[in-house]
Amino acid sequence: MTAPSDIEDLIGLMARLPGLGPRSARRAVLTLLKKRGPLMAPLAQAMAHVALTARDCATCGNIGTSDLCPICADPKRQTGEICVVADVADLWAMERAGVFRGRYHVLGGTLSALDGTGPDELRIPALVARVRDEATAEVILALNATVDGQTTAHYIADALEPTGVRITSLAQGVPVGGELDYLDDGTIGAALRARRQV
Amino acid sequence: MTAPSDIEDLIGLMARLPGLGPRSARRAVLTLLKKRGPLMAPLAQAMAHVALTARDCATCGNIGTSDLCPICADPKRQTGEICVVADVADLWAMERAGVFRGRYHVLGGTLSALDGTGPDELRIPALVARVRDEATAEVILALNATVDGQTTAHYIADALEPTGVRITSLAQGVPVGGELDYLDDGTIGAALRARRQV
Ligand SMILES: [Zn+2]
Ligand SMILES: [Zn+2]
Repeated sequence: MTAPSDIEDLIGLMARLPGLGPRSARRAVLTLLKKRGPLMAPLAQAMAHVALTARDCATCGNIGTSDLCPICADPKRQTGEICVVADVADLWAMERAGVFRGRYHVLGGTLSALDGTGPDELRIPALVARVRDEATAEVILALNATVDGQTTAHYIADALEPTGVRITSLAQGVPVGGELDYLDDGTIGAALRARRQV
Repeated sequence: MTAPSDIEDLIGLMARLPGLGPRSARRAVLTLLKKRGPLMAPLAQAMAHVALTARDCATCGNIGTSDLCPICADPKRQTGEICVVADVADLWAMERAGVFRGRYHVLGGTLSALDGTGPDELRIPALVARVRDEATAEVILALNATVDGQTTAHYIADALEPTGVRITSLAQGVPVGGELDYLDDGTIGAALRARRQV
């Protein structure tokens, strides 16, 4: 044995988190054991609380702690624009950027022939219904610039076509601070095709 | 805002774990949020349980879930040999190696002029008392081959000298599988000085 079995169980659960292998899970648990009062007890409590209260927003699929997520419940957010993201992580990234004032629709993934992920698993029907029901002026597709992301974007554009809603997607190009020398050919190509007059 | 404040609080606490920055803490919490039933709830429960039950072993300083740690409580462990380690992590590493059948003494750090860590913070007086009280044949110093580790080893050897106990330390040399080409000069020098006849 190394640690008592309760502690080994805890290490095993921690090791299932992304970015923590067995070795770093062990190190994280040791830190917790040394800071039982100031860190471990509050962390356990915060985690239990969120595990109990977190739920998927009935409207947009974002994670919140009530039936409507904070964004859908915020009367100051514009209702006419829906930003479609694959994942809650992407929603958080958009929010960190602080440039979008509308609402979201979280797909819960992207279409993937490999993983067998089809449209029905992705809340795409819910998006179409929402665009019909709400007075939606524009749907902004904020999906990864990957094959699956772009396949999903095309699928959604087709599905939304009958609604007549305006559909846009994030621009592709040179990232801010990006050096051409380090960019892949695809990005440079996309940036050239989307070039703007200065 | 990005996530609801409860979730942001959880991310903030997770980010205080070693190996998890703000970004990976966010990713870990998202994984937890997606696996609330199978992972987040059990992890919160395991953590709360360990936070409540874990305590430092009264004899050796190892972390266990009762007054005596599993090693001190195990009658099959030899009592005549005490292996001195700086930290519980080192104890776990020794136990994983599975080569030591005696008991431990966890210092809780190493002497450090920089951090202002002196002998009294390190359970060194407790070690001396223990060597006097228990029938101790040998004290094995398993400390890091760093300046602080070796300073601590020398200090302990001096403190234990009056007891007459046999004091040894882990051998320094080429690690198993180690390639000379990649070893630092200090290790090669130590290995040469400790060379053995074949
Ligand atoms: Zn919502
Ligand atoms: Zn013990």
